[in-house]
Amino acid sequence: MAESLKIVALAGGVGGAKLADGISRYLNNSPITVVVNTGDDLELFGLHISPDLDTVCYTLAGLANPSCGWGRVDETWQVYEELQKLGAPDWFHLGDKDLALHLERTHLIQSGQSLSEATRILCIRLGIKDRVIPMTDQMVRTLVFTQDGSHLSFQEYFVKEQCEPVITGFEFKGIRSAKPADGILQAIEEAHLVILCPSNPWVSIDPILLLKGIRPSLQKKCVIAVSPIIGGKTIKGPAAKMFREMGEIPGSLAVAEHYKDFLTGIVIDHQDVGETGSIIDRGIIPLVTNTIMRTIEDRIQLAKETINFGMQLARKGKNLV
Amino acid sequence: MAESLKIVALAGGVGGAKLADGISRYLNNSPITVVVNTGDDLELFGLHISPDLDTVCYTLAGLANPSCGWGRVDETWQVYEELQKLGAPDWFHLGDKDLALHLERTHLIQSGQSLSEATRILCIRLGIKDRVIPMTDQMVRTLVFTQDGSHLSFQEYFVKEQCEPVITGFEFKGIRSAKPADGILQAIEEAHLVILCPSNPWVSIDPILLLKGIRPSLQKKCVIAVSPIIGGKTIKGPAAKMFREMGEIPGSLAVAEHYKDFLTGIVIDHQDVGETGSIIDRGIIPLVTNTIMRTIEDRIQLAKETINFGMQLARKGKNLV
Repeated sequence: MAESLKIVALAGGVGGAKLADGISRYLNNSPITVVVNTGDDLELFGLHISPDLDTVCYTLAGLANPSCGWGRVDETWQVYEELQKLGAPDWFHLGDKDLALHLERTHLIQSGQSLSEATRILCIRLGIKDRVIPMTDQMVRTLVFTQDGSHLSFQEYFVKEQCEPVITGFEFKGIRSAKPADGILQAIEEAHLVILCPSNPWVSIDPILLLKGIRPSLQKKCVIAVSPIIGGKTIKGPAAKMFREMGEIPGSLAVAEHYKDFLTGIVIDHQDVGETGSIIDRGIIPLVTNTIMRTIEDRIQLAKETINFGMQLARKGKNLV
Repeated sequence: MAESLKIVALAGGVGGAKLADGISRYLNNSPITVVVNTGDDLELFGLHISPDLDTVCYTLAGLANPSCGWGRVDETWQVYEELQKLGAPDWFHLGDKDLALHLERTHLIQSGQSLSEATRILCIRLGIKDRVIPMTDQMVRTLVFTQDGSHLSFQEYFVKEQCEPVITGFEFKGIRSAKPADGILQAIEEAHLVILCPSNPWVSIDPILLLKGIRPSLQKKCVIAVSPIIGGKTIKGPAAKMFREMGEIPGSLAVAEHYKDFLTGIVIDHQDVGETGSIIDRGIIPLVTNTIMRTIEDRIQLAKETINFGMQLARKGKNLV
């Protein structure tokens, strides 16, 4: 049965990539569509770098570094070491294999390909069966506003400042004039199920949701979120800190509320079982299970439970509570 | 005495870089000015690549690969191998250390620095005492016209096509609106001696000579060329082939004639001793010596002989014959 399902996953970096990989593996030969945040993209040394696209692609291709949240397995650092010797900016870590992908993506874009077309070509070359689509072909850049009145690009905040500044808000520069990349709205329309991967709601999923037409299209579908907050914390990244600094208690309830205008159900961890009542009160159906993905098997198991849960809800129709 | 000399060298790639290095070493702590061809520059993967500047800088910094005509010693190829796996264009060989310099140059230029300012900064970081100046901060691109009626960028001709197409002419795109980079005309004016390094007259030295003001400034100076043609051949590169295809007999005489409107003297190899008479007939003074630079000592020796010869001629004044 699973093979014939049409699934769209919205994803940011590591957590999102892991679940997307679990879904891809669970659905076996049937390709899924992964819509990926590009608000974190940056231009460095003349190169177009798309960290979330890279993480998703490396993970789906089985090339991701398993020990850290980004980059490639068996990576080398020849160029980076030389950049440091040359006194070049070294806050953004560029592995040699990773760099090759940035170079070729930049080459494809400069040859006239859109980011989504470049991504399609690179996925074929990386042997990825799934359809990975950047959220937009226009430039959208996430800015993080901080307590001292300044703002940073997302990568400056995330990598250079190690998420230390206290945030006061976000801006997604270019979002008003950006359109979802070709194929995204159609994929959502045709999907049996849309899954919001356990990615940062503020900076990974929100930019996707803010693109013209995305939110209305989700309101017509069965949408399941997998909470990135477990026991008030995140496995990776600043989502919990962001909830706190935005005046909300980090938890699965906060995640459910973040998406409340279109969310059908939410998958939360055993640690958050205490939040089920409040989530149901908001008209959203929770599924309590293990959401920590340590192994490939964990990814597949979480994907399977999320899909089965979502398909049950989808069959019941949109208004469940 | 040598320390107080002001020398300007015009150079392209390998041969030019070697003699520039010999001059630099011979003059010891006194910096020389090396004006370098940028007609061979290219944009690849979004990066600004300046092959001749790189060769000159690596050679002066003692970082050049001694066995081939380009690139760095102790180079690694991690990125290049990955580019090949990704199906990226691989005709231009990009070593990891070399790539780091391309990245940082591109970064400096995108930060608002001119190519000459970026070069100045990179030279400091590479520990180069001499002043290396790209011939211009504007974009000049050498096109090679071939017998089949098409044209190629210089690097396509040189690297991709291995200099195989028969050439019919050259165009230096952008040369009319380009100006010599800041400091070049003044350095020539103040120089005791200008040396045309043994670089390709057609594609390494000609672009420099065609820049506004260069040729008139050279006509006022003592200018010595070191012939890149030895026994009708070149050590590296297509200069001899180009002379033939342009309808001239490759030799030191052809080199002397190429520069006849401003050249004072020419240093030629023992193998070309038979050409001295014809060279003198053109009003140019030849010096016959060993011009093949196999070792560092060869470079210094050739530099010493060229400078001593040039200074003798300079003291006699411009009109010698």
